[in-house]
Amino acid sequence: MSNAHKPVPVRTLEEKSSKADRWMARRLMDFIGWPPVQLVLWDGSRYAREDADVVAAIIVRDRGALRRLVTNPEFEFGEMYSCGRIEVDGDLAECLVCVYRALRAAGQVGGLRKRLLHALAKHPHNDEARARENIHHHYDIGNDFYRLWLDEQLVYTCAYFPAPDMTLEQAQIAKMAYVCRKLRLEPGQRVVEAGCGWGALALYMARQHGVTVKAYNISREQIAFARQRARREGLDDRVEFIEDDGRNIEGEFDVFVSVGMLEHIGVDSYPALASVIDRVLSDRGRGLIHSIGRDRPGPLNSWIQRRIFPGAYPPSISEMMTLFEPNGLSVLDIENLRLHYARTLQHWLQRYDANGDRVARMFDDTFRRLWRLYLAGSVAAFSTGTLQLFQVVFNRSGNNDVPWTRDYLYREPLPDQSPAS
Amino acid sequence: MSNAHKPVPVRTLEEKSSKADRWMARRLMDFIGWPPVQLVLWDGSRYAREDADVVAAIIVRDRGALRRLVTNPEFEFGEMYSCGRIEVDGDLAECLVCVYRALRAAGQVGGLRKRLLHALAKHPHNDEARARENIHHHYDIGNDFYRLWLDEQLVYTCAYFPAPDMTLEQAQIAKMAYVCRKLRLEPGQRVVEAGCGWGALALYMARQHGVTVKAYNISREQIAFARQRARREGLDDRVEFIEDDGRNIEGEFDVFVSVGMLEHIGVDSYPALASVIDRVLSDRGRGLIHSIGRDRPGPLNSWIQRRIFPGAYPPSISEMMTLFEPNGLSVLDIENLRLHYARTLQHWLQRYDANGDRVARMFDDTFRRLWRLYLAGSVAAFSTGTLQLFQVVFNRSGNNDVPWTRDYLYREPLPDQSPAS
Repeated sequence: MSNAHKPVPVRTLEEKSSKADRWMARRLMDFIGWPPVQLVLWDGSRYAREDADVVAAIIVRDRGALRRLVTNPEFEFGEMYSCGRIEVDGDLAECLVCVYRALRAAGQVGGLRKRLLHALAKHPHNDEARARENIHHHYDIGNDFYRLWLDEQLVYTCAYFPAPDMTLEQAQIAKMAYVCRKLRLEPGQRVVEAGCGWGALALYMARQHGVTVKAYNISREQIAFARQRARREGLDDRVEFIEDDGRNIEGEFDVFVSVGMLEHIGVDSYPALASVIDRVLSDRGRGLIHSIGRDRPGPLNSWIQRRIFPGAYPPSISEMMTLFEPNGLSVLDIENLRLHYARTLQHWLQRYDANGDRVARMFDDTFRRLWRLYLAGSVAAFSTGTLQLFQVVFNRSGNNDVPWTRDYLYREPLPDQSPAS
Repeated sequence: MSNAHKPVPVRTLEEKSSKADRWMARRLMDFIGWPPVQLVLWDGSRYAREDADVVAAIIVRDRGALRRLVTNPEFEFGEMYSCGRIEVDGDLAECLVCVYRALRAAGQVGGLRKRLLHALAKHPHNDEARARENIHHHYDIGNDFYRLWLDEQLVYTCAYFPAPDMTLEQAQIAKMAYVCRKLRLEPGQRVVEAGCGWGALALYMARQHGVTVKAYNISREQIAFARQRARREGLDDRVEFIEDDGRNIEGEFDVFVSVGMLEHIGVDSYPALASVIDRVLSDRGRGLIHSIGRDRPGPLNSWIQRRIFPGAYPPSISEMMTLFEPNGLSVLDIENLRLHYARTLQHWLQRYDANGDRVARMFDDTFRRLWRLYLAGSVAAFSTGTLQLFQVVFNRSGNNDVPWTRDYLYREPLPDQSPAS
């Protein structure tokens, strides 16, 4: 995290805000649409709607932070929050939900400004070297870090909560079971997984469904962890973890699955991925792609893009279709699980906050705040519909080996207990 | 059906095929990929793969028909079949399934030729006047005609068969119930339906779910029939049938539904439809669009386009998304019901054939054959994946009033009995 900001001294509260400062504060509130959130400047001056109970206060601690915020709120809020020059008093995620909703109502989201930004922004193009660098940036922070706030199996993608009150552990197992059910796995099938994280799904598929799996990932730390786990569980004869880009997959497979990888590559990379699917999927094969997405094409929040996920681009459905439509694939089912990701992120944020001290000791407080904001901001993005989560099931065009209805997905409760527990 | 061909005299079988005729016959079989179907010329010469049992024979009854077929098989097969210059000995639908499959395997479908055709073909653009004319062409042939082969409620869209062996009547009721379930109708809600056919769904929604419905259709005969039915069932205070283009809908509604209309308007008309949805859907509203579609953009079969559905264009998912993505709508669920349409069409074809004599008496034998080919060809198109059937559920971006999972769609069996029966 060499890019992360060093904390800077906060100016004293004695210095009074100027007329210009107060004008900027009001313009900022105009821009974000006066959410039920109080804006507080370093001298204690406050800006809020009179008619609403405020859910939180955003405290701007110095003039420079206010100026930067006004210039580029989307990016600078994260910068200034990370280093403590902006503080939030109250529930951070709830505060951001209010801001996102107000932005939408004020027409800032999806409006002209966004479209202009989108036209100007180049879609990230991730060649293999760049992809590797991006992934190292995020995933090679250290497995110990993720262990502090993910579930016990280290599943770092949207969980599925058949019942809203289940635990995160249960919901991650239910998600893996749900994905397997959508894929109708059968013993002996050959499965390939593009982007396998710490290997939980690959091992689950092999253990629970008797399939063999080749699982690809470019994160060295994750692959090392996954291989160790496969050996420990005696699954290393059926699950092969390969440290390589998913675009280099070789072989023939009955099933293609990718959970949480597509959003890390740009739309420009889809043709290469599509040709991999076409090359490796058997004629009767089927697949599932699970990805963060959007209701309309648009760039990821610039701060998240810069500080958390370089190269990430959550596609709209029409953008996702560029994977399938030109390549003889038929889409059978698309499900939007947006609110399941909001719930997943709430769990992560709660665990993260409970381990905040340990994160600060492992890194520093700026890092702790940066990741806290990312998690809370993601809760807000999925809660308010700024981001979506799509699961797409597909096969080759004209293959009639499809379930007659989707009823089989729901006939039996999903398992939500690890066989080990 | 002023465009339909008059039967022409079939040449005598005595005239021998020439070397050029036989060369053309082989080129034709090359083009369609030598399906397990025999090609027979007027003099009895036969062309078939040696290794396969043939399922049917396509008999070309004169040299002119062969020439026209070779020049433009996609279009002329329908022309020549309708007027009896081509005959099929065996199951027509099964024969066409084999031909479609062989075409796909030979790379003729979705291949370069198709793409060229697509680039050359202008997408149909249906302004209101044209739309009216197109709809009259098809739907104002007379209700008595459709009564011969549709279900008793005259539902002329894909049915839903929770159990594959249910009757067509049951499957059409199950389809309406399934659509209502996807929309989560509540008593008192205001529903608008764009393209309501003979009114079965509008009446079903009002009767079974206590909603009020405004239902739009530009076919005068269908609207007259639907109004009569509403009065007879005492639902005319809650269901209003309006003879107008769906693009002229006015008012505010909790639910927007359109079953089997989108495929009749060109992609160029989607922005107008999208602005209707945006204008009339309440903030918390939801919607469902059910439409024939394709796995990739491409033109409808030129013969169907000319003789059966002028102006029709089945969109791919990415094309459908142009309705939703630019307009602040969020797609929640897409289901592909392709094989349910193949099954529906098999039922229609069976009933149609059982009433073939009556159709020929109402019109003439050319008309009977033309519609028979359309129904059998549609069985083949949906069976082989040339056409798809998509149901898309949507609401406004950021609306969190969505079901937690899709399990509610399958928890209880769908009703499949008409309350009247």
